[in-house]
Amino acid sequence: MRNFNQFTITDAVLERISGAPDPRIKEISEALVRHLHAFVREVRPTQEEWAAGIDFLTATGHMCTGSRQEFILLSDTLGVSMLVDAINHEAGGTITESTVLGPFYVPEPPEFSAGADISGGLVGQPMLVTGSVSAPDGMPLEDAIVDVWHSDDDGYYDVQSTADDAGLAGRARFRTDAYGKFHFWSIKPAAYPIPHDGPVGKMLQAQGRHPWRPAHVHFMIEAPGYEVLVTHVFVSGDQYLDSDAVFGVKDSLIRDFQVEPAGQAPDGRQVDRDYCHLNYDFHLKPSTKTASRAA
Amino acid sequence: MRNFNQFTITDAVLERISGAPDPRIKEISEALVRHLHAFVREVRPTQEEWAAGIDFLTATGHMCTGSRQEFILLSDTLGVSMLVDAINHEAGGTITESTVLGPFYVPEPPEFSAGADISGGLVGQPMLVTGSVSAPDGMPLEDAIVDVWHSDDDGYYDVQSTADDAGLAGRARFRTDAYGKFHFWSIKPAAYPIPHDGPVGKMLQAQGRHPWRPAHVHFMIEAPGYEVLVTHVFVSGDQYLDSDAVFGVKDSLIRDFQVEPAGQAPDGRQVDRDYCHLNYDFHLKPSTKTASRAA
Ligand SMILES: [Fe+2]
Ligand SMILES: [Fe+2]
Repeated sequence: MRNFNQFTITDAVLERISGAPDPRIKEISEALVRHLHAFVREVRPTQEEWAAGIDFLTATGHMCTGSRQEFILLSDTLGVSMLVDAINHEAGGTITESTVLGPFYVPEPPEFSAGADISGGLVGQPMLVTGSVSAPDGMPLEDAIVDVWHSDDDGYYDVQSTADDAGLAGRARFRTDAYGKFHFWSIKPAAYPIPHDGPVGKMLQAQGRHPWRPAHVHFMIEAPGYEVLVTHVFVSGDQYLDSDAVFGVKDSLIRDFQVEPAGQAPDGRQVDRDYCHLNYDFHLKPSTKTASRAA
Repeated sequence: MRNFNQFTITDAVLERISGAPDPRIKEISEALVRHLHAFVREVRPTQEEWAAGIDFLTATGHMCTGSRQEFILLSDTLGVSMLVDAINHEAGGTITESTVLGPFYVPEPPEFSAGADISGGLVGQPMLVTGSVSAPDGMPLEDAIVDVWHSDDDGYYDVQSTADDAGLAGRARFRTDAYGKFHFWSIKPAAYPIPHDGPVGKMLQAQGRHPWRPAHVHFMIEAPGYEVLVTHVFVSGDQYLDSDAVFGVKDSLIRDFQVEPAGQAPDGRQVDRDYCHLNYDFHLKPSTKTASRAA
Protein backbone atom coordinates (compact mmCIF):
# COMPACT_ATOMS: atom_id res chain seq x y z
CA MET A 1 0.00 0.00 0.00
CA ARG A 2 2.52 2.61 -1.17
CA ASN A 3 4.25 3.91 -4.31
CA PHE A 4 0.97 4.84 -5.96
CA ASN A 5 0.95 6.33 -9.42
CA GLN A 6 -1.89 7.83 -11.44
CA PHE A 7 -3.01 4.39 -12.55
CA THR A 8 -2.88 2.56 -9.17
CA ILE A 9 -4.09 5.24 -6.75
CA THR A 10 -7.79 4.69 -7.47
CA ASP A 11 -7.76 1.02 -6.54
CA ALA A 12 -5.73 1.87 -3.43
CA VAL A 13 -8.39 4.31 -2.22
CA LEU A 14 -11.16 1.85 -3.07
CA GLU A 15 -9.41 -0.85 -1.07
CA ARG A 16 -9.02 1.52 1.88
CA ILE A 17 -12.76 2.21 2.02
CA SER A 18 -13.80 -1.37 1.36
CA GLY A 19 -14.38 -1.90 5.08
CA ALA A 20 -16.96 0.85 5.49
CA PRO A 21 -19.52 -0.66 7.87
CA ASP A 22 -22.61 0.89 6.26
CA PRO A 23 -23.22 -0.60 2.79
CA ARG A 24 -24.82 2.56 1.42
CA ILE A 25 -21.93 4.74 2.62
CA LYS A 26 -19.55 2.22 1.04
CA GLU A 27 -21.47 2.34 -2.25
CA ILE A 28 -21.58 6.14 -2.38
CA SER A 29 -17.93 6.51 -1.29
CA GLU A 30 -16.71 4.04 -3.91
CA ALA A 31 -18.69 5.71 -6.69
CA LEU A 32 -17.46 9.13 -5.57
CA VAL A 33 -13.83 8.02 -5.69
CA ARG A 34 -14.19 6.37 -9.11
CA HIS A 35 -15.96 9.32 -10.74
CA LEU A 36 -13.84 11.99 -9.04
CA HIS A 37 -10.63 10.26 -10.08
CA ALA A 38 -11.94 9.77 -13.63
CA PHE A 39 -12.66 13.51 -13.78
CA VAL A 40 -9.15 14.36 -12.56
CA ARG A 41 -7.54 11.88 -14.93
CA GLU A 42 -9.47 13.38 -17.83
CA VAL A 43 -8.77 17.06 -17.20
CA ARG A 44 -5.24 16.58 -15.78
CA PRO A 45 -5.35 19.68 -13.57
CA THR A 46 -2.10 21.49 -12.90
CA GLN A 47 -1.24 22.04 -9.23
CA GLU A 48 -2.38 25.65 -9.68
CA GLU A 49 -5.73 24.52 -11.11
CA TRP A 50 -6.15 22.04 -8.25
CA ALA A 51 -5.43 24.85 -5.78
CA ALA A 52 -7.98 27.04 -7.59
CA GLY A 53 -10.53 24.25 -7.15
CA ILE A 54 -9.77 24.06 -3.42
CA ASP A 55 -10.12 27.85 -3.20
CA PHE A 56 -13.43 27.75 -5.11
CA LEU A 57 -14.92 25.15 -2.75
CA THR A 58 -13.61 27.00 0.30
CA ALA A 59 -15.07 30.31 -0.88
CA THR A 60 -18.36 28.55 -1.65
CA GLY A 61 -18.43 27.18 1.91
CA HIS A 62 -17.57 30.54 3.42
CA MET A 63 -20.43 32.13 1.45
CA CYS A 64 -22.93 29.87 3.19
CA THR A 65 -24.84 31.44 6.08
CA GLY A 66 -28.21 30.92 7.67
CA SER A 67 -29.83 32.78 4.78
CA ARG A 68 -27.49 31.94 1.88
CA GLN A 69 -26.81 28.41 0.63
CA GLU A 70 -24.10 28.68 -2.02
CA PHE A 71 -23.65 24.90 -2.38
CA ILE A 72 -27.34 24.53 -3.27
CA LEU A 73 -26.83 27.27 -5.86
CA LEU A 74 -23.83 25.32 -7.19
CA SER A 75 -25.83 22.10 -7.35
CA ASP A 76 -28.73 23.94 -9.00
CA THR A 77 -26.62 25.67 -11.65
CA LEU A 78 -24.73 22.47 -12.54
CA GLY A 79 -28.05 20.71 -13.14
CA VAL A 80 -27.42 18.31 -10.25
CA SER A 81 -30.49 19.37 -8.27
CA MET A 82 -32.79 18.77 -11.24
CA LEU A 83 -31.10 15.42 -11.90
CA VAL A 84 -31.65 14.29 -8.30
CA ASP A 85 -35.22 15.55 -8.53
CA ALA A 86 -35.82 13.64 -11.78
CA ILE A 87 -34.38 10.43 -10.30
CA ASN A 88 -36.62 10.65 -7.27
CA HIS A 89 -39.83 11.89 -8.84
CA GLU A 90 -41.14 10.17 -11.88
CA ALA A 91 -44.47 11.88 -12.31
CA GLY A 92 -46.55 10.40 -15.11
CA GLY A 93 -50.31 10.42 -15.57
CA THR A 94 -52.09 13.21 -13.75
CA ILE A 95 -49.40 13.58 -11.08
CA THR A 96 -48.01 17.11 -10.82
CA GLU A 97 -44.38 17.39 -11.89
CA SER A 98 -41.75 18.47 -9.40
CA THR A 99 -38.85 20.86 -9.72
CA VAL A 100 -35.94 22.14 -7.63
CA LEU A 101 -36.34 23.25 -4.02
CA GLY A 102 -33.93 26.15 -4.43
CA PRO A 103 -32.08 27.88 -1.61
CA PHE A 104 -34.88 30.09 -0.27
CA TYR A 105 -37.19 27.65 1.47
CA VAL A 106 -37.60 28.17 5.21
CA PRO A 107 -39.03 25.15 7.05
CA GLU A 108 -42.18 25.56 9.10
CA PRO A 109 -43.42 28.92 7.83
CA PRO A 110 -46.24 30.46 9.88
CA GLU A 111 -49.72 29.26 9.01
CA PHE A 112 -52.26 31.71 7.62
CA SER A 113 -56.01 31.25 7.28
CA ALA A 114 -57.67 30.82 3.90
CA GLY A 115 -57.76 33.99 1.83
CA ALA A 116 -55.07 35.79 3.85
CA ASP A 117 -52.82 38.40 2.27
CA ILE A 118 -49.27 37.14 2.74
CA SER A 119 -47.52 39.99 0.90
CA GLY A 120 -46.18 41.39 4.19
CA GLY A 121 -46.42 44.91 2.82
CA LEU A 122 -44.59 44.22 -0.45
CA VAL A 123 -45.54 46.59 -3.24
CA GLY A 124 -46.57 45.21 -6.62
CA GLN A 125 -49.47 43.94 -8.67
CA PRO A 126 -51.94 42.11 -6.39
CA MET A 127 -52.03 38.36 -7.05
CA LEU A 128 -54.81 35.96 -6.16
CA VAL A 129 -53.67 32.34 -5.96
CA THR A 130 -56.31 29.64 -5.94
CA GLY A 131 -55.73 25.95 -6.11
CA SER A 132 -56.53 22.47 -4.99
CA VAL A 133 -54.72 19.38 -3.81
CA SER A 134 -55.99 15.98 -4.81
CA ALA A 135 -55.07 12.35 -5.40
CA PRO A 136 -54.22 11.26 -8.95
CA ASP A 137 -57.87 10.31 -9.50
CA GLY A 138 -59.07 13.74 -8.41
CA MET A 139 -60.15 12.79 -4.89
CA PRO A 140 -59.71 16.01 -2.84
CA LEU A 141 -57.15 15.87 -0.03
CA GLU A 142 -58.36 17.72 3.04
CA ASP A 143 -55.92 19.25 5.52
CA ALA A 144 -52.94 18.98 3.17
CA ILE A 145 -50.11 21.35 4.13
CA VAL A 146 -49.37 23.89 1.38
CA ASP A 147 -46.16 25.90 1.90
CA VAL A 148 -45.70 28.77 -0.54
CA TRP A 149 -42.87 31.23 -1.08
CA HIS A 150 -42.07 33.67 -3.86
CA SER A 151 -39.91 36.65 -4.71
CA ASP A 152 -41.00 40.27 -4.57
CA ASP A 153 -41.53 42.66 -7.45
CA ASP A 154 -37.75 43.22 -7.65
CA GLY A 155 -36.95 39.51 -7.63
CA TYR A 156 -35.77 39.21 -4.02
CA TYR A 157 -36.98 36.83 -1.30
CA ASP A 158 -37.69 38.09 2.21
CA VAL A 159 -34.76 36.09 3.61
CA GLN A 160 -32.37 38.00 1.34
CA SER A 161 -33.19 41.33 2.97
CA THR A 162 -30.44 42.90 5.05
CA ALA A 163 -32.80 45.50 6.57
CA ASP A 164 -33.05 45.44 10.36
CA ASP A 165 -36.84 45.40 10.28
CA ALA A 166 -37.11 42.77 7.54
CA GLY A 167 -39.91 40.34 8.25
CA LEU A 168 -41.87 37.60 6.61
CA ALA A 169 -43.11 38.49 3.14
CA GLY A 170 -44.42 36.30 0.34
CA ARG A 171 -44.04 33.19 2.49
CA ALA A 172 -46.73 31.21 4.32
CA ARG A 173 -48.35 27.88 5.10
CA PHE A 174 -51.97 27.00 4.33
CA ARG A 175 -54.12 23.95 4.88
CA THR A 176 -56.60 22.69 2.33
CA ASP A 177 -60.28 22.66 3.20
CA ALA A 178 -62.75 19.76 2.93
CA TYR A 179 -62.76 20.20 -0.87
CA GLY A 180 -58.95 20.11 -1.04
CA LYS A 181 -58.90 23.82 -1.83
CA PHE A 182 -56.76 26.74 -0.67
CA HIS A 183 -56.41 30.38 -1.69
CA PHE A 184 -54.47 33.45 -0.71
CA TRP A 185 -53.42 36.92 -1.82
CA SER A 186 -49.95 38.29 -2.38
CA ILE A 187 -48.16 40.24 -5.10
CA LYS A 188 -46.97 38.92 -8.45
CA PRO A 189 -43.32 37.75 -8.26
CA ALA A 190 -40.70 38.91 -10.74
CA ALA A 191 -38.01 37.03 -12.66
CA TYR A 192 -34.74 37.22 -10.75
CA PRO A 193 -31.05 36.47 -11.06
CA ILE A 194 -29.96 33.85 -8.52
CA PRO A 195 -27.57 35.44 -6.01
CA HIS A 196 -24.49 35.94 -8.15
CA ASP A 197 -22.19 38.03 -5.99
CA GLY A 198 -20.35 34.90 -4.82
CA PRO A 199 -18.30 32.02 -6.25
CA VAL A 200 -21.27 30.56 -8.17
CA GLY A 201 -21.85 33.93 -9.85
CA LYS A 202 -18.19 33.96 -10.89
CA MET A 203 -18.57 30.44 -12.24
CA LEU A 204 -21.63 31.37 -14.29
CA GLN A 205 -19.79 34.35 -15.75
CA ALA A 206 -16.76 32.22 -16.59
CA GLN A 207 -19.08 29.72 -18.27
CA GLY A 208 -20.70 32.48 -20.35
CA ARG A 209 -24.10 32.11 -18.65
CA HIS A 210 -26.67 34.50 -17.25
CA PRO A 211 -28.00 33.95 -13.71
CA TRP A 212 -31.71 34.56 -14.38
CA ARG A 213 -34.71 32.46 -13.46
CA PRO A 214 -38.19 33.02 -14.94
CA ALA A 215 -40.79 34.37 -12.49
CA HIS A 216 -42.44 31.66 -10.37
CA VAL A 217 -44.24 30.79 -7.15
CA HIS A 218 -42.78 27.92 -5.07
CA PHE A 219 -44.98 25.24 -3.54
CA MET A 220 -44.21 22.42 -1.13
CA ILE A 221 -47.26 20.25 -0.51
CA GLU A 222 -47.57 17.45 2.01
CA ALA A 223 -50.41 15.06 2.84
CA PRO A 224 -50.31 11.78 4.77
CA GLY A 225 -49.94 8.79 2.47
CA TYR A 226 -48.54 10.89 -0.41
CA GLU A 227 -45.07 11.90 -1.48
CA VAL A 228 -44.07 15.44 -0.62
CA LEU A 229 -44.41 17.56 -3.75
CA VAL A 230 -41.77 20.27 -4.24
CA THR A 231 -42.50 22.38 -7.28
CA HIS A 232 -43.01 25.86 -8.76
CA VAL A 233 -45.61 27.39 -10.99
CA PHE A 234 -44.02 29.60 -13.64
CA VAL A 235 -45.48 32.71 -15.25
CA SER A 236 -46.25 32.08 -18.92
CA GLY A 237 -44.48 34.31 -21.42
CA ASP A 238 -41.47 34.98 -19.20
CA GLN A 239 -38.36 35.64 -21.27
CA TYR A 240 -36.27 33.17 -19.25
CA LEU A 241 -38.51 30.09 -19.55
CA ASP A 242 -36.07 28.56 -22.04
CA SER A 243 -32.88 29.55 -20.25
CA ASP A 244 -33.64 29.09 -16.54
CA ALA A 245 -30.25 29.20 -14.78
CA VAL A 246 -31.17 26.09 -12.79
CA PHE A 247 -32.93 24.07 -15.53
CA GLY A 248 -36.17 23.87 -13.56
CA VAL A 249 -38.88 24.68 -16.13
CA LYS A 250 -41.43 22.12 -17.28
CA ASP A 251 -44.30 22.97 -19.60
CA SER A 252 -46.84 21.44 -17.24
CA LEU A 253 -45.79 23.94 -14.56
CA ILE A 254 -46.39 27.08 -16.64
CA ARG A 255 -49.65 28.99 -16.16
CA ASP A 256 -51.13 32.27 -17.22
CA PHE A 257 -51.24 34.68 -14.33
CA GLN A 258 -54.45 36.07 -15.82
CA VAL A 259 -54.93 39.81 -15.38
CA GLU A 260 -58.35 40.75 -14.02
CA PRO A 261 -59.86 44.23 -13.69
CA ALA A 262 -60.38 46.01 -10.36
CA GLY A 263 -63.56 45.03 -8.59
CA GLN A 264 -64.84 42.07 -6.67
CA ALA A 265 -62.50 39.05 -6.89
CA PRO A 266 -63.80 35.45 -6.93
CA ASP A 267 -63.27 35.16 -3.17
CA GLY A 268 -65.39 38.25 -2.53
CA ARG A 269 -62.49 40.60 -1.80
CA GLN A 270 -62.82 44.13 -3.24
CA VAL A 271 -59.68 45.02 -5.20
CA ASP A 272 -59.13 48.64 -6.13
CA ARG A 273 -56.74 48.01 -9.03
CA ASP A 274 -56.18 45.30 -11.62
CA TYR A 275 -54.78 42.07 -10.22
CA CYS A 276 -53.57 38.76 -11.58
CA HIS A 277 -55.03 35.36 -10.88
CA LEU A 278 -53.11 32.09 -10.79
CA ASN A 279 -54.96 28.81 -10.41
CA TYR A 280 -53.20 25.48 -10.15
CA ASP A 281 -54.69 22.10 -9.28
CA PHE A 282 -52.04 19.84 -7.79
CA HIS A 283 -52.17 16.05 -7.91
CA LEU A 284 -49.99 14.23 -5.38
CA LYS A 285 -48.34 10.87 -5.91
CA PRO A 286 -49.28 8.08 -3.48
CA SER A 287 -46.34 7.31 -1.23
CA THR A 288 -44.35 4.13 -1.78
CA LYS A 289 -41.73 5.21 0.74
CA THR A 290 -41.17 1.87 2.43
CA ALA A 291 -40.97 0.02 -0.89
CA SER A 292 -39.10 2.64 -2.89
CA ARG A 293 -35.58 1.63 -1.87
CA ALA A 294 -35.97 -2.00 -2.88
CA ALA A 295 -37.55 -1.09 -6.21
CA MET B 1 -34.58 24.10 -23.26
CA ARG B 2 -37.09 22.78 -20.72
CA ASN B 3 -38.82 19.58 -19.58
CA PHE B 4 -35.54 17.91 -18.69
CA ASN B 5 -35.50 14.39 -17.35
CA GLN B 6 -32.66 12.33 -15.92
CA PHE B 7 -31.51 11.38 -19.41
CA THR B 8 -31.64 14.81 -21.07
CA ILE B 9 -30.46 17.13 -18.30
CA THR B 10 -26.75 16.46 -18.84
CA ASP B 11 -26.78 17.55 -22.48
CA ALA B 12 -28.83 20.60 -21.51
CA VAL B 13 -26.19 21.72 -19.00
CA LEU B 14 -23.40 20.99 -21.49
CA GLU B 15 -25.15 23.09 -24.10
CA ARG B 16 -25.56 25.93 -21.61
CA ILE B 17 -21.82 26.07 -20.89
CA SER B 18 -20.77 25.58 -24.50
CA GLY B 19 -20.20 29.31 -24.85
CA ALA B 20 -17.63 29.62 -22.07
CA PRO B 21 -15.08 32.09 -23.47
CA ASP B 22 -11.98 30.41 -21.99
CA PRO B 23 -11.36 27.02 -23.63
CA ARG B 24 -9.76 25.52 -20.50
CA ILE B 25 -12.68 26.61 -18.29
CA LYS B 26 -15.02 25.14 -20.90
CA GLU B 27 -13.09 21.84 -20.91
CA ILE B 28 -13.00 21.55 -17.11
CA SER B 29 -16.66 22.61 -16.72
CA GLU B 30 -17.84 20.09 -19.30
CA ALA B 31 -15.87 17.24 -17.76
CA LEU B 32 -17.12 18.20 -14.28
CA VAL B 33 -20.75 18.12 -15.42
CA ARG B 34 -20.36 14.79 -17.20
CA HIS B 35 -18.59 13.04 -14.32
CA LEU B 36 -20.74 14.60 -11.59
CA HIS B 37 -23.94 13.62 -13.39
CA ALA B 38 -22.60 10.11 -14.02
CA PHE B 39 -21.89 9.81 -10.28
CA VAL B 40 -25.41 10.96 -9.40
CA ARG B 41 -27.01 8.70 -11.99
CA GLU B 42 -25.06 5.75 -10.61
CA VAL B 43 -25.79 6.22 -6.90
CA ARG B 44 -29.31 7.63 -7.35
CA PRO B 45 -29.25 9.70 -4.16
CA THR B 46 -32.51 10.28 -2.34
CA GLN B 47 -33.39 13.91 -1.64
CA GLU B 48 -32.26 13.32 1.95
CA GLU B 49 -28.89 11.97 0.79
CA TRP B 50 -28.48 14.92 -1.55
CA ALA B 51 -29.23 17.27 1.35
CA ALA B 52 -26.68 15.38 3.47
CA GLY B 53 -24.11 15.95 0.71
CA ILE B 54 -24.89 19.69 0.68
CA ASP B 55 -24.57 19.75 4.48
CA PHE B 56 -21.24 17.88 4.33
CA LEU B 57 -19.75 20.34 1.82
CA THR B 58 -21.09 23.30 3.80
CA ALA B 59 -19.63 22.01 7.06
CA THR B 60 -16.33 21.33 5.29
CA GLY B 61 -16.27 24.93 4.07
CA HIS B 62 -17.15 26.30 7.48
CA MET B 63 -14.29 24.28 9.02
CA CYS B 64 -11.78 26.14 6.84
CA THR B 65 -9.92 28.96 8.57
CA GLY B 66 -6.54 30.60 8.10
CA SER B 67 -4.92 27.62 9.87
CA ARG B 68 -7.25 24.77 8.90
CA GLN B 69 -7.90 23.67 5.32
CA GLU B 70 -10.59 20.99 5.46
CA PHE B 71 -11.03 20.79 1.66
CA ILE B 72 -7.33 19.93 1.26
CA LEU B 73 -7.85 17.21 3.88
CA LEU B 74 -10.83 15.96 1.87
CA SER B 75 -8.80 15.95 -1.35
CA ASP B 76 -5.91 14.22 0.44
CA THR B 77 -8.02 11.50 2.05
CA LEU B 78 -9.88 10.74 -1.19
CA GLY B 79 -6.55 10.23 -2.96
CA VAL B 80 -7.19 13.21 -5.25
CA SER B 81 -4.14 15.17 -4.09
CA MET B 82 -1.81 12.23 -4.79
CA LEU B 83 -3.48 11.71 -8.17
CA VAL B 84 -2.95 15.36 -9.14
CA ASP B 85 0.61 15.11 -7.88
CA ALA B 86 1.25 11.95 -9.92
CA ILE B 87 -0.18 13.54 -13.07
CA ASN B 88 2.04 16.58 -12.71
CA HIS B 89 5.25 14.97 -11.52
CA GLU B 90 6.58 12.03 -13.36
CA ALA B 91 9.89 11.55 -11.64
CA GLY B 92 12.01 8.83 -13.27
CA GLY B 93 15.75 8.39 -13.23
CA THR B 94 17.51 10.09 -10.35
CA ILE B 95 14.79 12.74 -9.90
CA THR B 96 13.40 12.82 -6.38
CA GLU B 97 9.77 11.72 -6.14
CA SER B 98 7.12 14.15 -4.98
CA THR B 99 4.21 13.71 -2.61
CA VAL B 100 1.29 15.73 -1.25
CA LEU B 101 1.67 19.28 0.03
CA GLY B 102 -0.75 18.73 2.90
CA PRO B 103 -2.65 21.46 4.73
CA PHE B 104 0.14 22.72 7.02
CA TYR B 105 2.46 24.58 4.66
CA VAL B 106 2.84 28.30 5.35
CA PRO B 107 4.26 30.27 2.41
CA GLU B 108 7.40 32.32 2.93
CA PRO B 109 8.64 30.91 6.23
CA PRO B 110 11.43 32.93 7.88
CA GLU B 111 14.92 32.12 6.65
CA PHE B 112 17.46 30.64 9.05
CA SER B 113 21.20 30.35 8.61
CA ALA B 114 22.89 27.01 8.04
CA GLY B 115 23.00 24.82 11.10
CA ALA B 116 20.27 26.72 12.98
CA ASP B 117 18.03 25.02 15.51
CA ILE B 118 14.48 25.51 14.26
CA SER B 119 12.73 23.54 17.01
CA GLY B 120 11.38 26.77 18.54
CA GLY B 121 11.61 25.24 22.00
CA LEU B 122 9.79 22.00 21.16
CA VAL B 123 10.74 19.11 23.43
CA GLY B 124 11.83 15.79 21.91
CA GLN B 125 14.73 13.83 20.55
CA PRO B 126 17.18 16.19 18.83
CA MET B 127 17.28 15.72 15.06
CA LEU B 128 20.06 16.72 12.71
CA VAL B 129 18.96 17.07 9.10
CA THR B 130 21.61 17.22 6.41
CA GLY B 131 21.05 17.21 2.71
CA SER B 132 21.86 18.50 -0.71
CA VAL B 133 20.06 19.78 -3.76
CA SER B 134 21.35 18.96 -7.20
CA ALA B 135 20.45 18.50 -10.85
CA PRO B 136 19.62 14.99 -12.10
CA ASP B 137 23.28 14.51 -13.06
CA GLY B 138 24.47 15.47 -9.57
CA MET B 139 25.53 19.03 -10.35
CA PRO B 140 25.05 20.94 -7.06
CA LEU B 141 22.47 23.73 -7.09
CA GLU B 142 23.63 26.74 -5.09
CA ASP B 143 21.17 29.13 -3.47
CA ALA B 144 18.22 26.77 -3.85
CA ILE B 145 15.38 27.60 -1.46
CA VAL B 146 14.63 24.76 0.96
CA ASP B 147 11.43 25.16 2.97
CA VAL B 148 10.98 22.58 5.74
CA TRP B 149 8.13 21.92 8.16
CA HIS B 150 7.33 19.04 10.47
CA SER B 151 5.17 18.04 13.40
CA ASP B 152 6.24 18.03 17.03
CA ASP B 153 6.78 15.04 19.29
CA ASP B 154 3.00 14.80 19.84
CA GLY B 155 2.22 14.98 16.12
CA TYR B 156 1.01 18.59 15.96
CA TYR B 157 2.20 21.41 13.72
CA ASP B 158 2.90 24.87 15.13
CA VAL B 159 -0.03 26.34 13.17
CA GLN B 160 -2.41 23.97 14.97
CA SER B 161 -1.63 25.47 18.36
CA THR B 162 -4.39 27.46 20.01
CA ALA B 163 -2.07 28.89 22.67
CA ASP B 164 -1.86 32.69 22.74
CA ASP B 165 1.92 32.66 22.76
CA ALA B 166 2.26 30.02 20.04
CA GLY B 167 5.06 30.85 17.64
CA LEU B 168 7.06 29.32 14.86
CA ALA B 169 8.31 25.82 15.60
CA GLY B 170 9.65 23.13 13.29
CA ARG B 171 9.27 25.41 10.29
CA ALA B 172 11.95 27.35 8.39
CA ARG B 173 13.58 28.28 5.10
CA PHE B 174 17.20 27.57 4.21
CA ARG B 175 19.37 28.26 1.19
CA THR B 176 21.87 25.80 -0.17
CA ASP B 177 25.56 26.69 -0.15
CA ALA B 178 28.03 26.54 -3.03
CA TYR B 179 28.05 22.75 -2.76
CA GLY B 180 24.26 22.55 -2.88
CA LYS B 181 24.20 21.60 0.79
CA PHE B 182 22.02 22.61 3.75
CA HIS B 183 21.67 21.41 7.34
CA PHE B 184 19.71 22.27 10.46
CA TRP B 185 18.65 21.00 13.86
CA SER B 186 15.18 20.35 15.18
CA ILE B 187 13.40 17.54 17.01
CA LYS B 188 12.23 14.26 15.54
CA PRO B 189 8.59 14.47 14.36
CA ALA B 190 5.99 11.92 15.40
CA ALA B 191 3.32 10.10 13.43
CA TYR B 192 0.04 11.95 13.68
CA PRO B 193 -3.63 11.67 12.89
CA ILE B 194 -4.74 14.29 10.38
CA PRO B 195 -7.14 16.73 12.06
CA HIS B 196 -10.22 14.55 12.44
CA ASP B 197 -12.55 16.61 14.60
CA GLY B 198 -14.36 17.91 11.52
CA PRO B 199 -16.39 16.59 8.57
CA VAL B 200 -13.41 14.74 7.05
CA GLY B 201 -12.84 12.92 10.34
CA LYS B 202 -16.49 11.86 10.32
CA MET B 203 -16.09 10.67 6.74
CA LEU B 204 -13.02 8.58 7.60
CA GLN B 205 -14.86 7.00 10.50
CA ALA B 206 -17.89 6.22 8.32
CA GLN B 207 -15.53 4.67 5.77
CA GLY B 208 -13.92 2.49 8.45
CA ARG B 209 -10.52 4.22 8.18
CA HIS B 210 -7.96 5.53 10.65
CA PRO B 211 -6.68 9.10 10.24
CA TRP B 212 -2.95 8.43 10.84
CA ARG B 213 0.05 9.46 8.81
CA PRO B 214 3.53 7.99 9.31
CA ALA B 215 6.12 10.38 10.78
CA HIS B 216 7.77 12.63 8.19
CA VAL B 217 9.53 15.89 7.46
CA HIS B 218 8.09 18.08 4.67
CA PHE B 219 10.29 19.73 2.07
CA MET B 220 9.51 22.25 -0.65
CA ILE B 221 12.57 23.00 -2.78
CA GLU B 222 12.88 25.64 -5.46
CA ALA B 223 15.71 26.60 -7.80
CA PRO B 224 15.61 28.66 -11.01
CA GLY B 225 15.29 26.48 -14.08
CA TYR B 226 13.89 23.51 -12.13
CA GLU B 227 10.41 22.37 -11.17
CA VAL B 228 9.40 23.07 -7.60
CA LEU B 229 9.75 19.85 -5.62
CA VAL B 230 7.09 19.22 -2.94
CA THR B 231 7.83 16.10 -0.97
CA HIS B 232 8.33 14.47 2.45
CA VAL B 233 10.97 12.20 3.90
CA PHE B 234 9.36 9.45 5.98
CA VAL B 235 10.82 7.73 9.03
CA SER B 236 11.61 4.09 8.25
CA GLY B 237 9.86 1.49 10.36
CA ASP B 238 6.83 3.66 11.09
CA GLN B 239 3.73 1.54 11.65
CA TYR B 240 1.62 3.66 9.27
CA LEU B 241 3.88 3.50 6.19
CA ASP B 242 1.47 1.07 4.54
CA SER B 243 -1.74 2.79 5.58
CA ASP B 244 -1.00 6.51 5.28
CA ALA B 245 -4.40 8.25 5.47
CA VAL B 246 -3.47 10.38 2.44
CA PHE B 247 -1.69 7.73 0.32
CA GLY B 248 1.56 9.73 0.22
CA VAL B 249 4.26 7.14 0.94
CA LYS B 250 6.83 6.12 -1.65
CA ASP B 251 9.74 3.77 -0.89
CA SER B 252 12.26 6.22 -2.31
CA LEU B 253 11.18 8.79 0.29
CA ILE B 254 11.78 6.58 3.34
CA ARG B 255 15.01 7.01 5.29
CA ASP B 256 16.51 5.80 8.55
CA PHE B 257 16.57 8.58 11.06
CA GLN B 258 19.80 7.06 12.40
CA VAL B 259 20.26 7.33 16.16
CA GLU B 260 23.67 8.68 17.18
CA PRO B 261 25.17 8.88 20.67
CA ALA B 262 25.66 12.12 22.58
CA GLY B 263 28.85 13.95 21.72
CA GLN B 264 30.10 16.02 18.81
CA ALA B 265 27.79 15.89 15.80
CA PRO B 266 29.09 16.03 12.19
CA ASP B 267 28.51 19.78 12.07
CA GLY B 268 30.63 20.33 15.18
CA ARG B 269 27.73 20.92 17.56
CA GLN B 270 28.07 19.33 21.02
CA VAL B 271 24.92 17.33 21.80
CA ASP B 272 24.35 16.22 25.39
CA ARG B 273 21.99 13.33 24.60
CA ASP B 274 21.46 10.86 21.80
CA TYR B 275 20.04 12.40 18.66
CA CYS B 276 18.86 11.18 15.28
CA HIS B 277 20.33 12.03 11.92
CA LEU B 278 18.43 12.25 8.64
CA ASN B 279 20.30 12.78 5.39
CA TYR B 280 18.56 13.17 2.05
CA ASP B 281 20.04 14.20 -1.26
CA PHE B 282 17.40 15.77 -3.49
CA HIS B 283 17.54 15.83 -7.27
CA LEU B 284 15.35 18.40 -9.00
CA LYS B 285 13.72 18.01 -12.38
CA PRO B 286 14.65 20.57 -15.05
CA SER B 287 11.70 22.81 -15.73
CA THR B 288 9.73 22.40 -18.93
CA LYS B 289 7.08 24.84 -17.77
CA THR B 290 6.50 26.65 -21.04
CA ALA B 291 6.32 23.43 -23.01
CA SER B 292 4.50 21.29 -20.46
CA ARG B 293 0.97 22.26 -21.46
CA ALA B 294 1.36 21.39 -25.12
CA ALA B 295 3.04 18.06 -24.30
FE1 LIG C 1 -37.39 30.88 -6.53
FE1 LIG D 1 2.70 16.43 7.54
